[in-house]
Amino acid sequence: MDSEAKGSGYGGIESGTRVVAKRRSMSGCDVVLRFLSLALSLAAAVVLGVNKETKMVSVTLVSSLPPISIPATAKWNYLSAFTYLVVANSIACGYAAISLALTLANRDGTKKWITILISILDLIMVALLFSAIGAAGAIGLMGYHGNSHVQWKKVCNVFDKFCSQTAASLGLSAAAAVAFFLLVVLATYNLHKRP
Amino acid sequence: MDSEAKGSGYGGIESGTRVVAKRRSMSGCDVVLRFLSLALSLAAAVVLGVNKETKMVSVTLVSSLPPISIPATAKWNYLSAFTYLVVANSIACGYAAISLALTLANRDGTKKWITILISILDLIMVALLFSAIGAAGAIGLMGYHGNSHVQWKKVCNVFDKFCSQTAASLGLSAAAAVAFFLLVVLATYNLHKRP
Repeated sequence: MDSEAKGSGYGGIESGTRVVAKRRSMSGCDVVLRFLSLALSLAAAVVLGVNKETKMVSVTLVSSLPPISIPATAKWNYLSAFTYLVVANSIACGYAAISLALTLANRDGTKKWITILISILDLIMVALLFSAIGAAGAIGLMGYHGNSHVQWKKVCNVFDKFCSQTAASLGLSAAAAVAFFLLVVLATYNLHKRP
Repeated sequence: MDSEAKGSGYGGIESGTRVVAKRRSMSGCDVVLRFLSLALSLAAAVVLGVNKETKMVSVTLVSSLPPISIPATAKWNYLSAFTYLVVANSIACGYAAISLALTLANRDGTKKWITILISILDLIMVALLFSAIGAAGAIGLMGYHGNSHVQWKKVCNVFDKFCSQTAASLGLSAAAAVAFFLLVVLATYNLHKRP
Protein backbone atom coordinates (compact mmCIF):
# COMPACT_ATOMS: atom_id res chain seq x y z
CA MET A 1 0.00 0.00 0.00
CA ASP A 2 2.75 2.31 1.02
CA SER A 3 4.73 1.70 -2.12
CA GLU A 4 1.55 2.14 -4.22
CA ALA A 5 0.81 5.46 -2.55
CA LYS A 6 4.37 6.57 -3.14
CA GLY A 7 4.12 5.53 -6.80
CA SER A 8 0.90 7.48 -7.24
CA GLY A 9 2.51 10.45 -5.51
CA TYR A 10 5.49 10.38 -7.87
CA GLY A 11 3.07 10.02 -10.80
CA GLY A 12 1.19 13.12 -9.66
CA ILE A 13 4.40 15.13 -9.33
CA GLU A 14 5.58 13.87 -12.73
CA SER A 15 2.28 14.80 -14.44
CA GLY A 16 2.27 18.19 -12.70
CA THR A 17 5.87 18.82 -13.80
CA ARG A 18 4.93 17.89 -17.38
CA VAL A 19 1.99 20.36 -17.38
CA VAL A 20 4.20 23.15 -15.96
CA ALA A 21 6.99 22.31 -18.46
CA LYS A 22 4.48 22.38 -21.39
CA ARG A 23 3.01 25.71 -20.20
CA ARG A 24 6.54 27.16 -19.85
CA SER A 25 7.54 25.99 -23.35
CA MET A 26 4.38 27.64 -24.82
CA SER A 27 5.05 30.82 -22.85
CA GLY A 28 8.66 30.64 -24.13
CA CYS A 29 7.36 30.37 -27.72
CA ASP A 30 5.17 33.44 -27.10
CA VAL A 31 8.14 35.45 -25.76
CA VAL A 32 10.39 34.41 -28.69
CA LEU A 33 7.69 35.33 -31.26
CA ARG A 34 7.07 38.69 -29.55
CA PHE A 35 10.79 39.44 -29.52
CA LEU A 36 11.03 38.44 -33.20
CA SER A 37 8.09 40.67 -34.18
CA LEU A 38 9.67 43.57 -32.24
CA ALA A 39 13.05 43.15 -33.99
CA LEU A 40 11.54 42.59 -37.46
CA SER A 41 9.12 45.53 -37.34
CA LEU A 42 11.86 47.81 -35.98
CA ALA A 43 14.22 46.71 -38.79
CA ALA A 44 11.45 47.18 -41.41
CA ALA A 45 10.66 50.71 -40.16
CA VAL A 46 14.36 51.71 -40.06
CA VAL A 47 15.24 50.19 -43.48
CA LEU A 48 12.37 52.10 -45.16
CA GLY A 49 12.66 55.19 -42.92
CA VAL A 50 16.24 55.90 -44.06
CA ASN A 51 15.46 55.10 -47.70
CA LYS A 52 16.53 57.97 -49.98
CA GLU A 53 18.24 57.99 -53.38
CA THR A 54 19.33 60.84 -55.63
CA LYS A 55 20.06 60.22 -59.32
CA MET A 56 20.95 62.49 -62.22
CA VAL A 57 18.26 62.33 -64.91
CA SER A 58 18.43 63.93 -68.35
CA VAL A 59 15.59 66.30 -69.25
CA THR A 60 14.93 68.01 -72.60
CA LEU A 61 13.79 71.57 -71.89
CA VAL A 62 13.97 72.96 -75.45
CA SER A 63 13.85 70.56 -78.42
CA SER A 64 16.56 72.45 -80.33
CA LEU A 65 19.03 72.13 -77.42
CA PRO A 66 20.65 68.92 -76.07
CA PRO A 67 19.09 67.42 -72.89
CA ILE A 68 20.45 68.62 -69.54
CA SER A 69 21.10 66.51 -66.41
CA ILE A 70 19.26 67.47 -63.22
CA PRO A 71 19.25 65.69 -59.82
CA ALA A 72 16.05 63.77 -58.96
CA THR A 73 15.41 62.37 -55.47
CA ALA A 74 13.29 59.42 -54.34
CA LYS A 75 12.37 59.43 -50.64
CA TRP A 76 10.12 57.13 -48.59
CA ASN A 77 7.70 59.89 -47.53
CA TYR A 78 6.98 60.99 -51.12
CA LEU A 79 4.46 58.13 -51.37
CA SER A 80 1.71 57.83 -48.74
CA ALA A 81 1.70 53.99 -48.92
CA PHE A 82 5.36 53.91 -47.79
CA THR A 83 4.61 56.40 -44.99
CA TYR A 84 1.77 54.09 -43.91
CA LEU A 85 4.17 51.11 -43.86
CA VAL A 86 6.71 53.01 -41.69
CA VAL A 87 3.97 54.19 -39.28
CA ALA A 88 2.37 50.71 -39.10
CA ASN A 89 5.74 49.07 -38.37
CA SER A 90 6.54 51.70 -35.71
CA ILE A 91 3.17 51.06 -33.98
CA ALA A 92 3.73 47.27 -34.21
CA CYS A 93 7.25 47.64 -32.79
CA GLY A 94 6.07 49.78 -29.84
CA TYR A 95 3.18 47.42 -29.15
CA ALA A 96 5.49 44.35 -29.35
CA ALA A 97 7.74 45.91 -26.66
CA ILE A 98 4.78 46.71 -24.34
CA SER A 99 3.13 43.30 -24.89
CA LEU A 100 6.48 41.54 -24.25
CA ALA A 101 6.73 43.28 -20.87
CA LEU A 102 3.06 42.48 -20.07
CA THR A 103 3.49 38.82 -21.10
CA LEU A 104 6.58 38.46 -18.91
CA ALA A 105 4.78 40.12 -15.96
CA ASN A 106 1.71 37.87 -16.47
CA ARG A 107 3.66 34.66 -17.19
CA ASP A 108 1.48 32.53 -14.90
CA GLY A 109 -1.66 33.79 -16.71
CA THR A 110 -3.48 34.80 -13.53
CA LYS A 111 -4.67 38.14 -14.93
CA LYS A 112 -7.17 36.96 -17.54
CA TRP A 113 -8.03 40.47 -18.84
CA ILE A 114 -4.39 41.00 -19.87
CA THR A 115 -4.44 37.74 -21.88
CA ILE A 116 -7.71 38.72 -23.62
CA LEU A 117 -6.48 42.29 -24.30
CA ILE A 118 -3.17 41.02 -25.75
CA SER A 119 -5.00 38.47 -27.97
CA ILE A 120 -7.21 41.22 -29.46
CA LEU A 121 -4.33 43.69 -29.89
CA ASP A 122 -2.23 40.96 -31.61
CA LEU A 123 -5.11 40.52 -34.04
CA ILE A 124 -5.28 44.30 -34.66
CA MET A 125 -1.53 44.22 -35.45
CA VAL A 126 -2.13 41.42 -38.00
CA ALA A 127 -4.81 43.55 -39.72
CA LEU A 128 -2.70 46.74 -39.55
CA LEU A 129 0.51 45.14 -40.87
CA PHE A 130 -1.18 43.14 -43.65
CA SER A 131 -3.04 46.23 -44.91
CA ALA A 132 0.19 48.28 -44.88
CA ILE A 133 2.07 45.49 -46.70
CA GLY A 134 -0.73 45.35 -49.29
CA ALA A 135 -0.62 49.12 -49.82
CA ALA A 136 3.19 49.42 -50.05
CA GLY A 137 3.40 46.21 -52.12
CA ALA A 138 0.88 47.50 -54.69
CA ILE A 139 2.69 50.85 -55.06
CA GLY A 140 6.09 49.08 -55.16
CA LEU A 141 4.87 46.72 -57.90
CA MET A 142 3.60 49.72 -59.85
CA GLY A 143 7.06 51.28 -59.50
CA TYR A 144 8.66 48.09 -60.86
CA HIS A 145 6.35 47.47 -63.82
CA GLY A 146 4.29 50.63 -64.40
CA ASN A 147 0.86 50.44 -66.07
CA SER A 148 0.10 51.36 -69.67
CA HIS A 149 -3.67 51.69 -69.12
CA VAL A 150 -3.34 54.59 -66.67
CA GLN A 151 -0.05 55.88 -68.17
CA TRP A 152 1.90 55.43 -64.92
CA LYS A 153 5.52 54.80 -65.91
CA LYS A 154 7.87 52.52 -63.96
CA VAL A 155 10.46 54.32 -61.84
CA CYS A 156 12.57 51.41 -60.56
CA ASN A 157 14.73 51.42 -63.70
CA VAL A 158 16.08 54.79 -62.44
CA PHE A 159 15.88 54.39 -58.63
CA ASP A 160 17.11 50.78 -58.39
CA LYS A 161 18.72 51.08 -54.93
CA PHE A 162 15.60 52.77 -53.52
CA CYS A 163 13.37 49.99 -54.89
CA SER A 164 15.62 47.18 -53.54
CA GLN A 165 15.61 48.78 -50.08
CA THR A 166 11.80 49.11 -50.18
CA ALA A 167 11.52 45.42 -51.17
CA ALA A 168 13.78 44.48 -48.21
CA SER A 169 11.58 46.50 -45.85
CA LEU A 170 8.48 44.81 -47.29
CA GLY A 171 10.06 41.38 -46.66
CA LEU A 172 10.86 42.30 -43.04
CA SER A 173 7.33 43.66 -42.52
CA ALA A 174 5.85 40.44 -43.94
CA ALA A 175 7.98 38.40 -41.50
CA ALA A 176 6.80 40.61 -38.58
CA ALA A 177 3.17 40.20 -39.72
CA VAL A 178 3.62 36.40 -39.86
CA ALA A 179 5.08 36.48 -36.31
CA PHE A 180 1.95 38.34 -35.05
CA PHE A 181 -0.21 35.89 -37.03
CA LEU A 182 1.53 32.95 -35.30
CA LEU A 183 1.00 34.62 -31.91
CA VAL A 184 -2.77 34.66 -32.52
CA VAL A 185 -2.66 31.01 -33.72
CA LEU A 186 -0.62 30.03 -30.63
CA ALA A 187 -3.10 31.78 -28.29
CA THR A 188 -6.05 30.01 -29.98
CA TYR A 189 -4.25 26.64 -29.79
CA ASN A 190 -3.37 27.15 -26.09
CA LEU A 191 -6.98 28.03 -25.24
CA HIS A 192 -8.32 24.98 -27.11
CA LYS A 193 -5.83 22.63 -25.42
CA ARG A 194 -6.61 24.03 -21.95
CA PRO A 195 -7.72 21.28 -19.58
CA MET B 1 -35.23 16.90 2.47
CA ASP B 2 -37.44 16.12 -0.49
CA SER B 3 -38.24 19.74 -1.20
CA GLU B 4 -34.52 20.63 -0.82
CA ALA B 5 -33.54 17.98 -3.35
CA LYS B 6 -36.25 19.23 -5.69
CA GLY B 7 -35.04 22.82 -5.27
CA SER B 8 -31.47 21.86 -6.03
CA GLY B 9 -32.69 19.91 -9.03
CA TYR B 10 -34.56 22.93 -10.39
CA GLY B 11 -31.48 25.11 -9.76
CA GLY B 12 -29.36 22.67 -11.73
CA ILE B 13 -31.82 22.65 -14.62
CA GLU B 14 -32.05 26.46 -14.51
CA SER B 15 -28.26 26.90 -14.56
CA GLY B 16 -27.94 24.29 -17.33
CA THR B 17 -30.63 26.09 -19.37
CA ARG B 18 -28.79 29.39 -18.91
CA VAL B 19 -25.49 27.85 -20.14
CA VAL B 20 -27.22 26.29 -23.16
CA ALA B 21 -29.04 29.60 -23.89
CA LYS B 22 -25.76 31.56 -23.69
CA ARG B 23 -23.96 29.05 -25.95
CA ARG B 24 -26.85 29.25 -28.46
CA SER B 25 -26.79 33.06 -28.48
CA MET B 26 -23.01 33.01 -29.12
CA SER B 27 -23.45 30.40 -31.84
CA GLY B 28 -26.23 32.61 -33.27
CA CYS B 29 -23.80 35.59 -33.32
CA ASP B 30 -21.26 33.41 -35.16
CA VAL B 31 -23.83 32.37 -37.79
CA VAL B 32 -25.05 35.96 -38.31
CA LEU B 33 -21.45 37.24 -38.71
CA ARG B 34 -20.61 34.43 -41.14
CA PHE B 35 -23.73 35.18 -43.20
CA LEU B 36 -22.84 38.91 -43.17
CA SER B 37 -19.26 38.24 -44.30
CA LEU B 38 -20.58 35.98 -47.10
CA ALA B 39 -23.04 38.62 -48.34
CA LEU B 40 -20.57 41.52 -48.03
CA SER B 41 -17.65 39.79 -49.77
CA LEU B 42 -19.97 38.55 -52.56
CA ALA B 43 -21.32 42.09 -53.04
CA ALA B 44 -17.78 43.55 -53.00
CA ALA B 45 -16.56 41.04 -55.64
CA VAL B 46 -19.60 41.65 -57.89
CA VAL B 47 -19.53 45.47 -57.57
CA LEU B 48 -15.84 45.58 -58.59
CA GLY B 49 -16.08 42.63 -61.01
CA VAL B 50 -18.64 44.39 -63.22
CA ASN B 51 -16.83 47.73 -63.01
CA LYS B 52 -16.15 49.15 -66.48
CA GLU B 53 -16.40 52.69 -67.86
CA THR B 54 -15.75 54.08 -71.33
CA LYS B 55 -15.21 57.82 -71.84
CA MET B 56 -14.30 59.97 -74.83
CA VAL B 57 -10.96 61.70 -74.24
CA SER B 58 -9.40 64.34 -76.49
CA VAL B 59 -5.88 63.58 -77.76
CA THR B 60 -3.58 65.88 -79.75
CA LEU B 61 -1.81 63.78 -82.39
CA VAL B 62 -0.26 66.58 -84.47
CA SER B 63 0.26 70.01 -82.88
CA SER B 64 -0.89 71.87 -85.99
CA LEU B 65 -4.25 70.02 -86.00
CA PRO B 66 -7.09 70.28 -83.44
CA PRO B 67 -7.32 67.46 -80.82
CA ILE B 68 -9.43 64.42 -81.72
CA SER B 69 -11.75 62.47 -79.40
CA ILE B 70 -11.04 58.76 -78.91
CA PRO B 71 -12.79 56.26 -76.59
CA ALA B 72 -10.79 55.22 -73.48
CA THR B 73 -11.90 52.36 -71.23
CA ALA B 74 -11.25 51.71 -67.52
CA LYS B 75 -11.80 48.09 -66.41
CA TRP B 76 -11.22 46.40 -63.04
CA ASN B 77 -8.69 43.87 -64.41
CA TYR B 78 -6.42 46.55 -65.91
CA LEU B 79 -4.85 47.04 -62.45
CA SER B 80 -3.49 43.99 -60.59
CA ALA B 81 -4.46 45.41 -57.17
CA PHE B 82 -8.14 45.43 -58.21
CA THR B 83 -7.84 41.88 -59.57
CA TYR B 84 -6.36 40.88 -56.20
CA LEU B 85 -9.34 42.47 -54.39
CA VAL B 86 -11.87 40.59 -56.57
CA VAL B 87 -9.99 37.27 -56.11
CA ALA B 88 -9.59 37.80 -52.32
CA ASN B 89 -13.31 38.61 -51.94
CA SER B 90 -14.28 35.56 -54.03
CA ILE B 91 -12.11 33.30 -51.84
CA ALA B 92 -13.56 34.90 -48.67
CA CYS B 93 -17.11 34.46 -49.99
CA GLY B 94 -16.55 30.77 -50.86
CA TYR B 95 -14.90 30.13 -47.50
CA ALA B 96 -17.73 31.95 -45.63
CA ALA B 97 -20.29 29.63 -47.28
CA ILE B 98 -18.29 26.47 -46.40
CA SER B 99 -17.56 27.62 -42.83
CA LEU B 100 -21.25 28.55 -42.35
CA ALA B 101 -22.25 24.98 -43.28
CA LEU B 102 -19.52 23.52 -41.03
CA THR B 103 -20.53 25.77 -38.10
CA LEU B 104 -24.19 24.75 -38.43
CA ALA B 105 -23.21 21.06 -38.64
CA ASN B 106 -20.92 21.42 -35.59
CA ARG B 107 -23.29 23.64 -33.55
CA ASP B 108 -22.77 21.67 -30.33
CA GLY B 109 -18.97 22.05 -30.69
CA THR B 110 -18.25 18.35 -30.25
CA LYS B 111 -15.75 18.18 -33.14
CA LYS B 112 -12.90 20.23 -31.71
CA TRP B 113 -10.68 20.02 -34.82
CA ILE B 114 -13.40 21.78 -36.89
CA THR B 115 -13.50 24.64 -34.35
CA ILE B 116 -9.68 24.99 -34.40
CA LEU B 117 -9.54 24.79 -38.23
CA ILE B 118 -12.28 27.41 -38.63
CA SER B 119 -10.55 29.75 -36.13
CA ILE B 120 -7.27 29.60 -38.11
CA LEU B 121 -8.99 29.96 -41.50
CA ASP B 122 -10.97 32.97 -40.19
CA LEU B 123 -7.64 34.53 -39.26
CA ILE B 124 -6.23 33.80 -42.74
CA MET B 125 -9.29 35.58 -44.23
CA VAL B 126 -8.57 38.63 -42.02
CA ALA B 127 -4.97 38.75 -43.33
CA LEU B 128 -6.03 38.14 -46.96
CA LEU B 129 -8.82 40.73 -47.00
CA PHE B 130 -6.85 43.44 -45.17
CA SER B 131 -3.87 43.05 -47.54
CA ALA B 132 -6.20 43.23 -50.58
CA ILE B 133 -7.97 46.31 -49.14
CA GLY B 134 -4.55 47.93 -48.54
CA ALA B 135 -3.42 47.19 -52.11
CA ALA B 136 -6.61 48.36 -53.83
CA GLY B 137 -6.92 51.33 -51.46
CA ALA B 138 -3.39 52.54 -52.25
CA ILE B 139 -3.95 52.28 -56.02
CA GLY B 140 -7.40 53.88 -55.70
CA LEU B 141 -5.95 56.78 -53.71
CA MET B 142 -3.27 57.23 -56.37
CA GLY B 143 -6.04 57.35 -58.97
CA TYR B 144 -7.86 60.08 -57.00
CA HIS B 145 -4.86 62.29 -56.22
CA GLY B 146 -1.94 61.24 -58.43
CA ASN B 147 1.67 61.85 -57.33
CA SER B 148 3.90 64.59 -58.68
CA HIS B 149 7.14 62.94 -57.45
CA VAL B 150 6.74 59.88 -59.68
CA GLN B 151 4.72 61.73 -62.36
CA TRP B 152 1.67 59.47 -61.98
CA LYS B 153 -1.34 61.57 -62.97
CA LYS B 154 -4.78 61.20 -61.38
CA VAL B 155 -7.37 59.38 -63.50
CA CYS B 156 -10.50 59.78 -61.38
CA ASN B 157 -11.26 63.20 -62.86
CA VAL B 158 -11.99 61.32 -66.12
CA PHE B 159 -13.35 57.96 -64.88
CA ASP B 160 -15.50 59.25 -62.01
CA LYS B 161 -18.15 56.47 -62.13
CA PHE B 162 -15.42 53.79 -62.21
CA CYS B 163 -13.72 55.32 -59.15
CA SER B 164 -16.97 55.65 -57.17
CA GLN B 165 -17.83 52.00 -57.87
CA THR B 166 -14.30 50.94 -56.77
CA ALA B 167 -14.71 52.96 -53.56
CA ALA B 168 -18.06 51.22 -52.90
CA SER B 169 -16.43 47.81 -53.40
CA LEU B 170 -13.62 48.83 -51.04
CA GLY B 171 -16.19 49.83 -48.39
CA LEU B 172 -18.01 46.48 -48.73
CA SER B 173 -14.67 44.59 -48.54
CA ALA B 174 -13.73 46.52 -45.40
CA ALA B 175 -17.08 45.58 -43.80
CA ALA B 176 -16.50 41.89 -44.73
CA ALA B 177 -12.97 42.05 -43.27
CA VAL B 178 -14.37 43.55 -40.03
CA ALA B 179 -16.95 40.71 -39.87
CA PHE B 180 -14.14 38.11 -40.12
CA PHE B 181 -12.15 40.11 -37.53
CA LEU B 182 -15.15 39.99 -35.14
CA LEU B 183 -15.47 36.22 -35.73
CA VAL B 184 -11.88 35.73 -34.49
CA VAL B 185 -12.53 38.05 -31.50
CA LEU B 186 -15.75 36.14 -30.70
CA ALA B 187 -13.93 32.78 -30.86
CA THR B 188 -11.19 34.07 -28.53
CA TYR B 189 -13.77 35.50 -26.10
CA ASN B 190 -15.78 32.25 -26.10
CA LEU B 191 -12.65 30.20 -25.37
CA HIS B 192 -11.62 32.53 -22.52
CA LYS B 193 -15.08 32.45 -20.95
CA ARG B 194 -15.31 28.64 -21.22
CA PRO B 195 -15.95 27.08 -17.80
